[in-house]
Amino acid sequence: MIKKFTSGNPIDTQAVVEKFNALPIAEFPLGGKFENGNFVFEFDMADSDIVYGLGEAPRGINKRGWVYNSFCSDDPFHTETKSSLYAAHNFLMLSGSKTFGIFIDFPSKIRWDIGYTTANKTVITIDGTDFDIYYIDGTKPLEIVKEFRKSIGTSYVPPFWAFGYQQSRWSYHNAEAVDAVVDGYNKAGIPLDCVYLDIDYMERYKDFTVDDEKFPNFKDYVSKKREEGIHLIPIIDAGVKKENGYDIYEEGRKNGYFCKNEDGTDFEGGVWPGIVGFPDFLRPDVRKWFGSKYKILTDMGIDGFWNDMNEPAIFYSVKGLNKALDKAASLKGQNLDLSKFFELKDTFAGLSNSPEDYSSIYHTVDGKQVCHDQVHNIYGANMTKAAGEYFAEKFGKEKILMFSRASYVGAHRSSGIWFGDNHSWWSHILLDLKMLPSANMCGFLYCGADLGGFNENATRDLVLRFLALGVFTPLMRNHAALGTRNQECYSFENSDDFKDIVEVRYRLIPYLYRTFKKASEENDMIFRPLSFDYPDDKIARECETQLMLGDECMICPVYEQNVGGRYVYLPENMTFVKLSGTSITTEKMSKGTHYIEVALNEVPLFIKDGRQIELCKPAMRTSQLDTTDTVMIP
Amino acid sequence: MIKKFTSGNPIDTQAVVEKFNALPIAEFPLGGKFENGNFVFEFDMADSDIVYGLGEAPRGINKRGWVYNSFCSDDPFHTETKSSLYAAHNFLMLSGSKTFGIFIDFPSKIRWDIGYTTANKTVITIDGTDFDIYYIDGTKPLEIVKEFRKSIGTSYVPPFWAFGYQQSRWSYHNAEAVDAVVDGYNKAGIPLDCVYLDIDYMERYKDFTVDDEKFPNFKDYVSKKREEGIHLIPIIDAGVKKENGYDIYEEGRKNGYFCKNEDGTDFEGGVWPGIVGFPDFLRPDVRKWFGSKYKILTDMGIDGFWNDMNEPAIFYSVKGLNKALDKAASLKGQNLDLSKFFELKDTFAGLSNSPEDYSSIYHTVDGKQVCHDQVHNIYGANMTKAAGEYFAEKFGKEKILMFSRASYVGAHRSSGIWFGDNHSWWSHILLDLKMLPSANMCGFLYCGADLGGFNENATRDLVLRFLALGVFTPLMRNHAALGTRNQECYSFENSDDFKDIVEVRYRLIPYLYRTFKKASEENDMIFRPLSFDYPDDKIARECETQLMLGDECMICPVYEQNVGGRYVYLPENMTFVKLSGTSITTEKMSKGTHYIEVALNEVPLFIKDGRQIELCKPAMRTSQLDTTDTVMIP
Repeated sequence: MIKKFTSGNPIDTQAVVEKFNALPIAEFPLGGKFENGNFVFEFDMADSDIVYGLGEAPRGINKRGWVYNSFCSDDPFHTETKSSLYAAHNFLMLSGSKTFGIFIDFPSKIRWDIGYTTANKTVITIDGTDFDIYYIDGTKPLEIVKEFRKSIGTSYVPPFWAFGYQQSRWSYHNAEAVDAVVDGYNKAGIPLDCVYLDIDYMERYKDFTVDDEKFPNFKDYVSKKREEGIHLIPIIDAGVKKENGYDIYEEGRKNGYFCKNEDGTDFEGGVWPGIVGFPDFLRPDVRKWFGSKYKILTDMGIDGFWNDMNEPAIFYSVKGLNKALDKAASLKGQNLDLSKFFELKDTFAGLSNSPEDYSSIYHTVDGKQVCHDQVHNIYGANMTKAAGEYFAEKFGKEKILMFSRASYVGAHRSSGIWFGDNHSWWSHILLDLKMLPSANMCGFLYCGADLGGFNENATRDLVLRFLALGVFTPLMRNHAALGTRNQECYSFENSDDFKDIVEVRYRLIPYLYRTFKKASEENDMIFRPLSFDYPDDKIARECETQLMLGDECMICPVYEQNVGGRYVYLPENMTFVKLSGTSITTEKMSKGTHYIEVALNEVPLFIKDGRQIELCKPAMRTSQLDTTDTVMIP
Repeated sequence: MIKKFTSGNPIDTQAVVEKFNALPIAEFPLGGKFENGNFVFEFDMADSDIVYGLGEAPRGINKRGWVYNSFCSDDPFHTETKSSLYAAHNFLMLSGSKTFGIFIDFPSKIRWDIGYTTANKTVITIDGTDFDIYYIDGTKPLEIVKEFRKSIGTSYVPPFWAFGYQQSRWSYHNAEAVDAVVDGYNKAGIPLDCVYLDIDYMERYKDFTVDDEKFPNFKDYVSKKREEGIHLIPIIDAGVKKENGYDIYEEGRKNGYFCKNEDGTDFEGGVWPGIVGFPDFLRPDVRKWFGSKYKILTDMGIDGFWNDMNEPAIFYSVKGLNKALDKAASLKGQNLDLSKFFELKDTFAGLSNSPEDYSSIYHTVDGKQVCHDQVHNIYGANMTKAAGEYFAEKFGKEKILMFSRASYVGAHRSSGIWFGDNHSWWSHILLDLKMLPSANMCGFLYCGADLGGFNENATRDLVLRFLALGVFTPLMRNHAALGTRNQECYSFENSDDFKDIVEVRYRLIPYLYRTFKKASEENDMIFRPLSFDYPDDKIARECETQLMLGDECMICPVYEQNVGGRYVYLPENMTFVKLSGTSITTEKMSKGTHYIEVALNEVPLFIKDGRQIELCKPAMRTSQLDTTDTVMIP
C-alpha cells in the first residue's frame, strides 16, 4: 500500500504514473522537520536490518554504513568513498525489525546518511521544501518493490537483438575501424550483434551529424552492416556545438531552446565539441525539437542510441575558465607560498562540473525561470525522454535500443542505463553485480556495466571474468576508453576462451529474454539479493557476491585475479552448472558452503532443485538463433 | 645458492652486504639482451606457477597479471591499476614448474611485465646497463627468501614499546590536541603507547624545529608524556625549508649539501614548507650532517621518528610553476578549443612529482655529477640511512623507532616502513594483508598500513575490522588525514568494542615480539602466503585473504562491510580461536571450507593442531605488560 505525502509545490518529475491523493507531510509516518530550508527525517535500524535501494550508486547491495548523495555526477573514479554516480534513484527500503519503502520524488539534492554518522540510524536530508514522498507499506521486500514499480510504470523493453553481445570503444572512428571489429569477431567465430560509434563518428562532435570522410555514404554503410547482422549504435551528447552554419545549433539559438544565464543570454559550457549550448530538456517544446532530430539517424537505418554527458557534464564554462586564467595572471612573478600554489592548482582542477557553474544555469519550467540546481537530477532523464517520446510515436515499442548515462526514476519507461565510466578493476566486477538488483528495484531492467572496464588497461583474465558476469546482464557490452589497451575478445591470446564465454550468452538468450519480459510485465526484478529469497538465512542475508536470477537460478561470478575458483554459499540444495561454449557439466550440491572450481572459459550457474532453464544453440547473431530449438537443463 | 651477475659499473646501493664474486652478465641463467640502452630478459610461466615478490607494491601476493614499475612514487591513490607505490623492492621469485629468485640491484627504473602483455611470460626491462642481478637457486620459496635475506643483512628491530598501539593524525597540532588523545584513550580504557606528531608540530615545517607556541617547553612535555607511558613520534621530511636565518638551511647551502640543477645552483622545489633544498643523501658527508640533526630531538627525549616525503615528493619546482603560469598567460583572451583546455588543465595537474623535474636534479656520487633519474629509488633509503647511522652510533640497537615512506632493499637494516597514504577503503584491508609477506621477503619486518585508512572518511565498522588485522602487524598505527573524520578509537560510539580489539594486541605482544625477533635473527618471514606451507593444496596456493603467522598461526581478517563473518579455508585441522578483550573462545575445525562468524569486537585466529601460543594479560601500556605471566592457548 502506497501513500503519498506532499510538501509545498513540487516540480512534476513524471516519475510516478499512478495517481495518489496527496496527504500533508505532517502525516508522514517517519515524522521529520523543516530546518534551514531542508526537510530532515530519520529512522532507527536494528543491528541485523538491511537497507536496500538507491539504484545506480556506489558500494553494496546493503547501503548501510555510508553517506550517499542524490546528485547525477560525471565522475569516472568509482571508488568506495564516492557518494554518487551518474544517476539519482531515490528509492530506499528498510528490511528487518521494520519493513517499508520510501520514494522521494525531488529533482535536486538528497543526502542519505545510512548509519554513517551513527551506526544504527538513517538520516535523510532533502535539500528543499517542495517534494513528494511515497511511503510503501509491506511485509516483504519484493512485495514493496513490486508495489513501487507498479506506481512508476512499466519498464522499457529493448529490441530482441539488444540481448546480443556488443562491442564498443572510444572510438572506432571510421568505417575501416568498424569493419576490423566485425572481421575480428567473425574470424574468431565469436558472436556479435552491435558495434558502437563513440564521439568520433560525428563531424566535430556535432550531434546528429556523421563525418563524411570517416563514414562515406553512411546510410549505405549502415545498411551493409545490417545485412551482416550488425547494428551500429551511435552516441548522442547533451550539448549542441556552437558553430555558425550548424543548423541544429542555429535553430536552438534562434528559438531560445538552450539553457540560460541569469541575464537570459545562452549559458556556454565547454564539452567535447568545444563551446556548446545545452538544450533545455525540461521544456516539452525543446524535447519535441531535439527528439525529432534522432530522425536524421533513424532515416539512415540506425535503430539504437546511447545518450551521454547528460548529467550534464561540463568540462568548463567560459566564465570559469576566464576566472582561472585571471588568477594565474595575477600570481605571475610572485613567490607563491604553498597555500597559493594549491589554490591555483585546485582552481584548474575544479573547472569541470563545478557547483558554481551549475548554480548559474537556468531552465524554464512551466514558463518560470528555475535554477539548474533545483532540477539537476532530471536533466539527463528528460534528454532521454525527448528521444523516447519520438521513438514511441514513430516506431512503437521494442524497436529502438536506447540507454542513457544520467537517469532518474521515470526514465526507466523509455530507456535502459549503463553504469558509466568504470575502470578495469577487479573490484568493479562486484560493483556491477551489486548495482543490478538495486537498479531493478528502481525500474531499470536493461542495464549493465562496461565489461572489461572502461578506464585504464585490462588484462585478458579480467575481461574473461567480467564477461562471465556480463553473460547474465541484459546489456552485455565490452567498452574501453581512448588510450587504453585493446580489449575486444579477439585482441587477446587464445580467443577460443572468449568464444566459449560469449556463446554461453547466446545459448541463454531465450531464458534471459523470457525472464526480462516477465519482469517488465509483472513489475518484477530480474536480479534479487539472496536475502529476498532466504530472509531467515544469516549467511544468505549478508551475501553480496551472488545474486538470484529469475525464478530458477543463482549466479556467482569469479571476481578475483589468479584464482581457479571461489567460495559459494548455497541456501538450499542446487545443481551446479558449468557452461562453456556448447559444453555443459552439472553436479548436485547440498545446502552450505563450497569452494567451486571455475576455469577462465567457464560460466558458473546454480539452478534450484526442481527447476530447469532452456538453452538454445549458439549462433553468430541473435537473428540466427533458433529460440524454439532448446534443451532443458539440468 | 646465490650467484651475482654484473653489467657495467653499477652504483653501489649497499643493498647486499654479503660478498659474492661478480660473474659476467652473459652467463646470467635467464639470458637477456641489451637494446636501446636497456637490458631485457624474460622467463616463461606454467599456468599454475606463482610469482612472488616486489615488496611494497600494488595488487596481489601473486604478482601475475599486471605490469609493475620500480619507481618510488608519492601517489596516494592505491587503486588496482597503479604500477608503483612508495618503494622499490626489486626481489622476484617464481615458484612452480621452476623455482628461483632474482634480485636486481639497480637504483633507477625497472619494468616488470608479469604476464600482462602475454599471460604466461614475464618480461623484465632494466632501464640502464649498469646493474647487478643476483640469481638465487632453490627448491622451496622460503629457502630462497632466507638465502636472499641472509645476503642483505639482518632486519631492523624496533624498541619493544613500538609493538604497542599507536595513534596518529595529520595533525595533533599542539600539546592540547595530544593531551586530548591520551585522555581520550585513558578514559575509554584503551591501551596506547605512541602519539604521532605530523608536520604541524614544526615551526613553518622546518625539519628539527618545534613550534614553541604549540608545544611550549617541548623537552618537559616529552618527558611528562613519557612519565605517562606515551612516546611522541615526530615526522621528519626530506626537504629543508629555504629561509634566511634557519641554521640547517644555511649550513646546507653554505656547504653545498643540497641537490643541484645541471648548472650547479641549488635545485628548488616546493613542498610543505614552501621552497626547499633537498639534501643530497647519496653523499656520506651529507648523511652524517643530516643524521646528526636528529640529536636536536633525541636530546629533548624523543626516541622515535617517521621519515616522510622522501621519494622525494615535489609539489612543484619553481621552473615548472613559472612555465605553467606562462602558458596560462599566453592563452588569455583566446577562444580555447578543447585540446588546448585539457593541455592547460593537465599542465597544472602535472606540476607535482613531474618527470621533467626529476630529470633536472643532480647528485654527487663518488665525486661525479649523477642525474637524479639514475638514483631515484635510493634517495629515500639514504635519508633513512642518515638517521640510522646516527642512531646506531649514538644509541646502539633497538633503542630508536624509525620507519620511512620511501625505501629500497638495504634500508630494512636500519628501519621499518609504513605502506603510505592509503584510503579508508574496505579493499585496503586486503591490500595491507597482501603486502605483509611481500615486504617480509625483502627484509622489511617492521611494517603496516595506516589502520582505518589515511585518506577520506572512515566508518566505525571499517576502523574496527582494519584494527582486527592490525592487531597482528608489527606496526599497529591508526592514522588519518587532515579534513577527514576523526578515527581515534574513542571518537566512535561504544568504544568498548575498540577496547576489546586493542587489548587483544597487548595480550599477543609476547608472542608477536618473540616471532618478530626470531624472524630477524633467522632471516625468516613473520607472515607467509599459505602456498609456502601447503604448496600442493590448490585452494591454499591461491588464497590471498589469509596468511600464515609464525610457526603456529593462520590469520583471516574480515574485510567486507555489513557482514558478520567470512569464508575461510583450512589446509589442515586447526583450532579456531576468537579473542576479544580478555575473553577467548576456541573450536576445533577440520580441514576444508568453512564460514566463520566474527563480531566487530572479535579477532579471529587459527592455531595449527599440536601448536600453542602464549597470551599475557592486557595493560594500558607496553611498559605495564607482565610478559612472563602468560597462558598458553588453546
